[in-house]
Amino acid sequence: MDDEQKLTQLKSLLNEVWDLRRVVRLLQWDQQVKMPIGGTHGRAHQLATLSQLEHVKFTSEEIGQLLEDLQPYAGQLDPDANDARLIRVTTRRYKKKTRVPADWVARKAEAASEGYRAWEEARATDNFSLFQPYLEKNVSLRQEYAEFFKPYEHVYDPLLDEFEPGIKTREVQQIFDELRPQQVALIQAIGDRPQVDDSFLHQPFDEKKQWDFGAEVVTRFGYDWKRGRQDVSPHPFTESLGLGDVRITTRFMPDYLSSAMFSTFHESGHAIYEQGIDPDLDRTHLATGASLGLHESQSRLYENLVGRSYDFWIHFYPRLQEYFPMQLANVSLESFYSGINKVEPSLIR
Amino acid sequence: MDDEQKLTQLKSLLNEVWDLRRVVRLLQWDQQVKMPIGGTHGRAHQLATLSQLEHVKFTSEEIGQLLEDLQPYAGQLDPDANDARLIRVTTRRYKKKTRVPADWVARKAEAASEGYRAWEEARATDNFSLFQPYLEKNVSLRQEYAEFFKPYEHVYDPLLDEFEPGIKTREVQQIFDELRPQQVALIQAIGDRPQVDDSFLHQPFDEKKQWDFGAEVVTRFGYDWKRGRQDVSPHPFTESLGLGDVRITTRFMPDYLSSAMFSTFHESGHAIYEQGIDPDLDRTHLATGASLGLHESQSRLYENLVGRSYDFWIHFYPRLQEYFPMQLANVSLESFYSGINKVEPSLIR
Repeated sequence: MDDEQKLTQLKSLLNEVWDLRRVVRLLQWDQQVKMPIGGTHGRAHQLATLSQLEHVKFTSEEIGQLLEDLQPYAGQLDPDANDARLIRVTTRRYKKKTRVPADWVARKAEAASEGYRAWEEARATDNFSLFQPYLEKNVSLRQEYAEFFKPYEHVYDPLLDEFEPGIKTREVQQIFDELRPQQVALIQAIGDRPQVDDSFLHQPFDEKKQWDFGAEVVTRFGYDWKRGRQDVSPHPFTESLGLGDVRITTRFMPDYLSSAMFSTFHESGHAIYEQGIDPDLDRTHLATGASLGLHESQSRLYENLVGRSYDFWIHFYPRLQEYFPMQLANVSLESFYSGINKVEPSLIR
Repeated sequence: MDDEQKLTQLKSLLNEVWDLRRVVRLLQWDQQVKMPIGGTHGRAHQLATLSQLEHVKFTSEEIGQLLEDLQPYAGQLDPDANDARLIRVTTRRYKKKTRVPADWVARKAEAASEGYRAWEEARATDNFSLFQPYLEKNVSLRQEYAEFFKPYEHVYDPLLDEFEPGIKTREVQQIFDELRPQQVALIQAIGDRPQVDDSFLHQPFDEKKQWDFGAEVVTRFGYDWKRGRQDVSPHPFTESLGLGDVRITTRFMPDYLSSAMFSTFHESGHAIYEQGIDPDLDRTHLATGASLGLHESQSRLYENLVGRSYDFWIHFYPRLQEYFPMQLANVSLESFYSGINKVEPSLIR
């Protein structure tokens, strides 16, 4: 085989791996959105089997050999060319994944799936003790994972690398060391001033109208409904099951407008990023976001830089008032804008 | 390995195969119930990859060797014991599947998935020509499949065997040769008498109330909602994604009561059969209905023998009248019973 044939063969093997990855995602999406509770144990088995298969297929000697053989070829390409990036990104992932035993992958997939179910029940019944043993098991599995990457500078480095390739815990600490004093000062300064009134956001808002307004806005953002759908789940998320099938979820609070609205804006940002991926990259390890940081930059762009901006609401606030005249007819654009930008410490942020 | 260890090893391999089978079913269920149209090609790839993987895993030499080694052991067991049946049923399927090339499995899964999408569109727009090329491709794939089983008595035998293991086209023809003259005579005799009035079934019926009544009845039949769910799809079906996750679908006609109601009864019959499978058989080739004939016997039991019986409606008709007083308050139980049992030739039956 010459280099181009090897590259074609590599892509064909990666296509199979990537199909498995997406099927794992469908199993997860379905568990969170549709699956009846009776499916829990069977789903955990399915996730374990599929995740392990994906792992075994990806860490095969054949893929390793092709990647090794293709290094000189990749070196001759424009480093920004898709093929050069594919070889680089895939080689990096290959080197990582081959340090992880397949049985750990199966155990982790099963524990995560069982743990999700326990989390859901603990959340619904406000009873942390239901979730605690599952959390402990999942944390211990993560610790086990870190050990595969010894020696490390910090135990969190191998885990962090899953979200933001290459970054070190030390660097994140430096960023926060610099930001934290400024943030604390800022929040204190805000706290010293009279608090903004956002009581109008805490009223009964019809769920269907919340859904419709959110859908209208994200359609205008560019979210393509022919290549996606929205459902309700306990915690909002975005899942790409293919470049033509990027799904978002949200959740509704009957007495608080901001929750579903901004989560829908947020998830649409993740989804638009995924829907925008070049079809040439489909079914390879380039057919996804480059990192969690980049992904969050896109979701928060739509949620905050756009969705909490004054200019945005000049256009959309009259429309929102049409949806909810009883609640908002007497709230001015300026009050609304202040209300949705109210800053206060919360339990998670 | 002694025989018991070999059996344990066989089961463990079959568990993996069966997980893949169920994931294929989830991919199909999702395509018919939830997937946006943009997912079509990606889903076809996923189905091809997963179906092929399932096939390759199942037709492995390791499973073949274990089955061969276990034949004497199986011969010593009570022929009705689960393990004896498992070895027998799995050996039969293994012998069949090893005659089928893996690439045919992939091509067929892809063609079926693409074909489903075309069928859906052709159906919605009443335009057969959209579906015709896909139908031709799928028929030609089935013809190709039959060739793997040459010599055969009848080209349909290898296909029929997928639905009803062991039966021959000749036998089905004999059954129909005997039944047809009696059926024709019966339908003619019915046609000679004054037709039953079922006009009250053809009125507007609120969709949500149709849903609720159907759900109430199948709950009483024993359908377990903690191990299942109902959705809407273009054509009603049942899919088992696990013994704890057996899903049904239905479709609603706004102006005809019988359609969704009897299809819900029907699918619940399929589902109750699947939900009733012994958990000891889970994740093996015994964790499903024994044949299509047995499956239809269960669905039609609930749809017809129960759901169209007079005694059933003595109990449920007053309840149905509460759901639809405007439409049914003035229709007697006897008229209703006659109406739902009206016999007339249709395009499919």
